Amino acid sequence: MTQSTAPSPRTRIRRKPERARYDVEAINAIVDAAVICTVAFQIDGAVHAIPTIHWRDGEHLYIHGAKASRMLTALTEGEACLTIALADGLVVARSAMHHSMNYRSVVVYGRFELVTEPAEKERSLKALIDSLYPERWDTLRPINDKELNATGVLRIPLAEASAKARDFGVKDDDEDLDWPVWAGVIPLATTLGTPRREDDSVGRTVPATRFRPQSDSDRGAA
Amino acid sequence: MTQSTAPSPRTRIRRKPERARYDVEAINAIVDAAVICTVAFQIDGAVHAIPTIHWRDGEHLYIHGAKASRMLTALTEGEACLTIALADGLVVARSAMHHSMNYRSVVVYGRFELVTEPAEKERSLKALIDSLYPERWDTLRPINDKELNATGVLRIPLAEASAKARDFGVKDDDEDLDWPVWAGVIPLATTLGTPRREDDSVGRTVPATRFRPQSDSDRGAA
Repeated sequence: MTQSTAPSPRTRIRRKPERARYDVEAINAIVDAAVICTVAFQIDGAVHAIPTIHWRDGEHLYIHGAKASRMLTALTEGEACLTIALADGLVVARSAMHHSMNYRSVVVYGRFELVTEPAEKERSLKALIDSLYPERWDTLRPINDKELNATGVLRIPLAEASAKARDFGVKDDDEDLDWPVWAGVIPLATTLGTPRREDDSVGRTVPATRFRPQSDSDRGAA
Repeated sequence: MTQSTAPSPRTRIRRKPERARYDVEAINAIVDAAVICTVAFQIDGAVHAIPTIHWRDGEHLYIHGAKASRMLTALTEGEACLTIALADGLVVARSAMHHSMNYRSVVVYGRFELVTEPAEKERSLKALIDSLYPERWDTLRPINDKELNATGVLRIPLAEASAKARDFGVKDDDEDLDWPVWAGVIPLATTLGTPRREDDSVGRTVPATRFRPQSDSDRGAA
């Protein structure tokens, strides 16, 4: 496992540091695999946290929302801590204490900035759509100025971030290895179900997504 | 949609309030469907957030961790904001701005308390194991005092909580309904993959979990 150095004291992972990664590749891969993050911030000294869709473009993580929202205002005025977590597997052991989960997570510290320049804002929204549905943006009814103006887009650098992952089998105590229960890892994955088309959409092709279909029959025209 | 009243001003959902639920049934159902939450808290006035496994027992949400962790200490000393989010579907529209996600989320405010009484702590850890793997606790090598003592268990009342969900189809603008792209909802689900058993575990039965297997062949002896 590649182990680099934490970019700041608050980013350094103290519990089980052998599971930590601080390199850009590891962090970007987890950011890109997830769709929903949780953003924690303060308003008048009180802590708040809200789950929201995120995406990445280069060295920044982006979120968006209605321009008038409390969160977007608070985020431009103070520090935030953003988390991403993916459950990858159930680790099933012979003793309660060695049950665990395989997971990938990222924690990002920093300050969000508002994306104000219209062309840059549009480029970032294109990155959102195309990250979920490759090349879909150019097939859509073009965005208009009113829509662009109503949307707030914020970005935070991925510079002060850490990743943490568990991706191995069961670590039972030696004396428990013959305890008569099943032990192993049961993988968990996010999979696509059967698309449900809108009535007006007969005969058109379901877009590809970055997620894994449950079976081949879930894809294609519907 | 049942709409009750927010239990506190900070719990009241301001953006898209028609998606809000404040009743115990709605909140418990989302808490029980998720495995990982994010807990946001403060240390010396700075905001931190950490993803962690959670479970529910009655009217409390529980988390656990090493007793010596920063998080467990901070959580007993100040207010926390806890979030849960489940991605249920990709909402695919004809214009960028009407793309969305179906989701279920919960936000909980309050203060954690440490579960110190050993019998109560053991009961709560049994609830964790059995919530993931029904009736597994009693089949395991029994927990010992050292393990029980090393584990910190915290709980927070689910009294000050809100739920929010989107669970409907595409809301495109009327003038876009004949735009020539597919529109609809692509469901997302967490599914189980093929279990990978430990070498010593041949012939034993894979435990049932509360998650949905990808196919029937993923279950049974392995």
